[in-house]
This record gives sequence, structure tokens and C-alpha cells, in this order.
Amino acid sequence: MKHLIGNLLYGQSGGPTSIINTSAYGIFIEAFKHQDIIKDVYAMNYGIKGLLLDKLTKIDKDDKDLKKLLNTPGSFYGSNRFKLKSYKDDKKTYEKILNTFKKHNIRYFFYNGGNDSMDTIHKIGDYFKLNNYECNCIGIIKTIDNDLPHTDFSIGYPTAAKFIINSAIEIYLDDHSYEEGRINIVETMGRNAGWLAASAKLMEIKGIKADLIYVPEIIFDIDDFLDRVKDIYNKNKHALVIVSEGLKNKDGEFIFQTNSLLDSFGHNQLGGLSIKLANLITNKLGIKTRYYELSLLQRANSTSISKTEQKIAINLSKFAVKEAIKGVTQKAVVIKRVSSNPYKVKFETVDIGEIANQERYLDDKYIDKDNHYITDKFVEYLYPLIDKEKGLLDFYKK
Amino acid sequence: MKHLIGNLLYGQSGGPTSIINTSAYGIFIEAFKHQDIIKDVYAMNYGIKGLLLDKLTKIDKDDKDLKKLLNTPGSFYGSNRFKLKSYKDDKKTYEKILNTFKKHNIRYFFYNGGNDSMDTIHKIGDYFKLNNYECNCIGIIKTIDNDLPHTDFSIGYPTAAKFIINSAIEIYLDDHSYEEGRINIVETMGRNAGWLAASAKLMEIKGIKADLIYVPEIIFDIDDFLDRVKDIYNKNKHALVIVSEGLKNKDGEFIFQTNSLLDSFGHNQLGGLSIKLANLITNKLGIKTRYYELSLLQRANSTSISKTEQKIAINLSKFAVKEAIKGVTQKAVVIKRVSSNPYKVKFETVDIGEIANQERYLDDKYIDKDNHYITDKFVEYLYPLIDKEKGLLDFYKK
Repeated sequence: MKHLIGNLLYGQSGGPTSIINTSAYGIFIEAFKHQDIIKDVYAMNYGIKGLLLDKLTKIDKDDKDLKKLLNTPGSFYGSNRFKLKSYKDDKKTYEKILNTFKKHNIRYFFYNGGNDSMDTIHKIGDYFKLNNYECNCIGIIKTIDNDLPHTDFSIGYPTAAKFIINSAIEIYLDDHSYEEGRINIVETMGRNAGWLAASAKLMEIKGIKADLIYVPEIIFDIDDFLDRVKDIYNKNKHALVIVSEGLKNKDGEFIFQTNSLLDSFGHNQLGGLSIKLANLITNKLGIKTRYYELSLLQRANSTSISKTEQKIAINLSKFAVKEAIKGVTQKAVVIKRVSSNPYKVKFETVDIGEIANQERYLDDKYIDKDNHYITDKFVEYLYPLIDKEKGLLDFYKK
Repeated sequence: MKHLIGNLLYGQSGGPTSIINTSAYGIFIEAFKHQDIIKDVYAMNYGIKGLLLDKLTKIDKDDKDLKKLLNTPGSFYGSNRFKLKSYKDDKKTYEKILNTFKKHNIRYFFYNGGNDSMDTIHKIGDYFKLNNYECNCIGIIKTIDNDLPHTDFSIGYPTAAKFIINSAIEIYLDDHSYEEGRINIVETMGRNAGWLAASAKLMEIKGIKADLIYVPEIIFDIDDFLDRVKDIYNKNKHALVIVSEGLKNKDGEFIFQTNSLLDSFGHNQLGGLSIKLANLITNKLGIKTRYYELSLLQRANSTSISKTEQKIAINLSKFAVKEAIKGVTQKAVVIKRVSSNPYKVKFETVDIGEIANQERYLDDKYIDKDNHYITDKFVEYLYPLIDKEKGLLDFYKK
């Protein structure tokens, strides 16, 4: 087989995660193994923007600290919010990109991001073909939202889920320090997909549970919500409710922006959903509340990374480099589950267009719609991804 | 020496921490070593309330899971908000307490809490003396606020500080994923004392820093604050500001309750300080912000407990039991620093009245008033308590 000989370029895009740099690490160490084919390894500074300004960082294979990328949250090489237009609408940008690739003889291109980023690779790859520039372009999937199709999970999700479960356990135990607790509203990320909120289901493994888990796939009704939390609190003197930031009403409006909440509290810009729901409860029901916006700690937490995810992220990146060397291009690398117990996966490639601009919602089989909760089937899905028993807080029980 | 022979009672009070149950564990395992003196070991259910209702839990010395108390956040045996009045004003309560002690032949009493709880021991101990009931009463200090006097630190503070430092590092790195970031406002607990906010100073050990650290010991001026964050952001395109929840203006009013913030946003009940400051910045300066209320995750985080603190907490409890057996009563056990490097401590007792209802503010020598920041001296204080290098996120640097 005749391989493309040249340099490799890696870039990061979209929202950071605590594990995106682990994907970078996997790419780099695999690339260094193939020095007859891949000569130099570069990373873009701030994604596509760095490409347009010809700002690249050469990766030093002798850097002993490189392994620390595994514990580094944020997008170490820099991300950006640049949205690539179509070739027809922005020829100049495409020409600049191609020039930078040519100048540095980039023949392997790995772009690490969510569905927007997959669309970017798609467009760049098409443009290269049109111009007969040989370069193998591969997408490395990343998003804590877990909303990419054709993969068992997106890199970033398990660690974020693990943080959410343990935080929810901590909040639960703190609240139960008192005989009479509060109604606790925990807000997770997830504009359209409920994967992150659903993770709190796994508190059950430790013998405790959230009372309600609201995901954006199900229409949110404020009056029904108030009735439910009132009943739960009156019965137990404690309540724990998990809400996705992106809950919507029957008209498809985001709850945190709807008049029903704004009318009572005035200002749209003040905070997210959890704070508004907590204030609504206090005002309407007179019950003490606490709200928790887990905010970007859920995507940046690095003290309790899922080891299972870390290992898979490295191996998926290695697989991507090996596939690219074989000549694969315009594909994303994805994870297929072979078995849940023991958890085994294999890696595959899918056409980049199959992932670009797609959104994968929480499966119906995982949603207990009537009870605003999550089904037992979801445990089988998530438990292996968070290191199983080892990933959960091992607290004392009565 | 003639020892008091009887049973031991342990109770928890005040706000929970992630390490209060570690103090319990230390008491229990030391007590089990002295079975000729201490017969049975009990814990109060929900503190003083459990005492009044005669609800005690017997601790099983053969329980193999007891060690899990070391990883259990919240007050496992239950806390309460009960404030004991003076003997004169509430004789009945004191009589009930004494009856429960007599009924269970409690001769050793350990109460685990902050300055209010020390006051409770003080009052109960005095009442026992008045009634010739022999019982050795010892206070085990606990508060993440670190505002108790006569001790190197309060049990709960180092682990909370470690969580704050690592969270601030994560927020910093996440924000630096983009070339142009935001003004990030991180709110820590601390109504009157700035120990928790000050901890972010230790980001410097990893070569990065917060731009401003506001502690309640220093008067907060909103206009000066806006000027400073504007200058920092315009220069760096990033800003990280740590604020104590209890910041006050020159009239001693809490900032989050002052008209200067409420006038612009209306509703007092909506959230804490960080959200209001973030909105103020956005509205007045037109700069993008993020706010982070670390809320009770800072007191309940159990995935990154300081090992240094854990060890000291166990040993301090053991010391307390040994002192009580020797006949010591009406004292609190405290930590005295012998050296910082290597970190060495010794344990002492102080009169309970010396701690009850006292508040220890952040020392002047730790406050850089002109720059709204923390001095280098503070690093020597805190660094040993958070496991030094091992306690901090070991991330990759350029």
C-alpha cells in the first residue's frame, strides 16, 4: 500500500470538555509511531481561526509532560466559534485554508468537535477533493451532551455524567443531614437532549434516588411540576429534582425564557432555569429551596475523570490515525458497543455527513414519561461508562 | 488514676461538611480501644433534638463498613438548627438532656460543630456541674469557614479550600479555551471571614492566577469593582474574580442585598452575589460574563478530600477521647502548627468558652487590600493543608 507522506494537523472546536485533550494525546502518540509516514505533528491555535492566520503549534514528541494532557480541562490548543460557510459563499476562506495546508504539507487532518465541527471537516474535505489536494480528513467526536448519532457515546459525556451523579449524591446526603430538608433543584446542561440529566438515575445504584428527572424530550408543564414537588416534599420533607437547562413548554419555548417564569420575577438575564424554578417554588408553595447550576464544572471537572472513557478516548484516537494512514478520509471514528457486561467496544468509521448537523435525543426506552423519571434500561447503558462501582462515591449507609 | 466508667455519646451540629463524619470515625475507633472504661458508644440522631427525644443510635464496633464514614459527606448522624437557650430561660430542656444522659449512663460527651455548638457544650457542661453529674464534655471543631480561633484550621476547611482551588483552575482553563473569554465571577461561602475565597490564591502554584479576590474583611465598592474588571478584561480578554458571599459596603450592608444591585434587577430572592455582579457587569459594561455559585458542593465534595486533613481529623478525635478519659472536660481540642515545611502539628485543649461564639477573621497579613488580592504569606499557611503539589490539578502547560 502506498501511503500519503506528509505532516499531521490536529484542531479543537466547539465547547471544551475535561477530556478533549485526551483525544489530542491519543492522536499525537500514535502519529509519533509512524515517522516514516507522518513527519511533523501540528495543532491549530484556536481551531479554524489559527488555520486562517497560519498559527500552528508544533508538537514536541520528546516532551515528557505531554501526558499531562490527560488531566487538562479546557481546549488546550484553543477553540473558536467560527462557523464555516459554504464554498460558494466564502471562497477566500477556503483558499486560505488550502494554502496553509499546502505550505505545511498537511496530509492528515483531525478535527475534534461536535456536529458543527463534523460539518466543517465535511466541507473542507470536499473542497480538497475539488482541488485535487490529497489529505485524509477525520472527525474525532466530542461533546458532553452525548447528542451525536452512530456512536455508543460521545467523548466527554461519561466523565460529565460521573460528575453529575456524584454531585447529586453529595447534594442528597447534605440535604439529609437535617430531618427536614429542602426542595433541591439541580440544573444540568443539555439544550435539546436529556443525556446529562438522565445520568442522575444512577444514584439508585447507591440505594438513594432523585425524585424527578426532567429531560427536554418531554414537554414541561409548570403547574404539574409544582403539584409533584409539593406532594413529594410534604410526604418526605426532602426533594431532589434534576432539570435539563433546555426544558420547553408545549409551544416549544424554553421554560427559563417563558413569561410564566419571567412575569413573576422580571428579568430574563438573571440566571438559568434552576434559580427561577427554585424561586417559583418558594413564592408559590412557601417551601425552602436550593438551586444548583452545575454550569461548566460539569464539562471541566478533572478530579474524577472516568478511567473507562479515558482509555477509550486514547484508543479511538489511535484508531483514527491508523485508519487515516490506510487512506480513509471524510469519516468520523465512532464507538460501537459489543457487550455491556463486561463492557466491550469496537471502533468503526462512518461517513462524516452522517454525523454533521445531526442530533441524537435520549432514546424513548430510557424515558419514563408519566413519572418524569428514567427507566432501569438506562443503567445498563451508562453504568459501564462511569467505571461502574469504582466511579461512584462509596459512602456509608444506615 | 480513677477513670469515669460509662458510655460515650457523640453528636453533630451546624452545617454539614464532607469530613465531619471523619471526626466521628476517629472518636468511635479510639473509644473502642478503651472498653474497660468506655462501654457503649452512641450517636445522637439529629443532634440536640435526638437528645431531647431520646433518639440515639448505638455504634456497632464490628461494623466493617464503618470506615466508609471517611468518604461520606453530610452529617451522617443528623444535624439540627436548635439553639440552646440559657439555663434560666429553659430549665425543662436542660432537665430532659440530663435525664437522657443519666438513662444511658453517658459519661463522655463529644459535640462536633462550629462556634454555636461550642456554646452548647459550654452550657450543658455547666449545668451538669451544677447538678453534680459527672460527664466529660469535649468540643470537636468543625466548619468549612475556618473562622474558629485558637486552632491552625477548622476541620472541614482544607478540603473545601482544595475544591475551590481546583474548581477555579478548571474554570480558568475552560475560559482560556477561547482567545476572547469572559469575566468569570466565582462565589464562595464565607459570610464574615474570607478564608474560603482566599484559597484561590493557590492557583499561583500552578502558574496561573485569579485577577481579584474579594473578602468580606474589606469594604466592597461597586464602582471601583466595575473599573477594575473593565481594565483587566480590556487588557487580557479574560478575567477571573473570586468573591465571598458576604461582601459588604461601607455601611456594613451585604452587597447582594443592597439597593445598588437590587434597583437594577428587582428581586432580592433571586440568587446570590455572583449572579447579580455578573448581570451588573453585562448591563453596565456590555462584557460577557459567567457566574458560579459553588454553593454546597464546596462543603459536600467528597471526591477530592485532603488526605492531610483526613489524617489530622482522625488523630484530633483520638486525642479528644484520650483527653476525656484523663478527666478533661469543658474543653475543645485544637490544632497547633509546629512547622510548615514539613507540616507538623500538635494537639492541645482550650477552654470551651474561648471558642464559643468567637469569630476569627482572615489575618491582616494575608490581605493585599489595595489590590483586592491575597498576599504570598497565605500560601505558606494553606499549601500544606491541601496535600501540597498532590492536591492540585496537574495540568499541562505551554
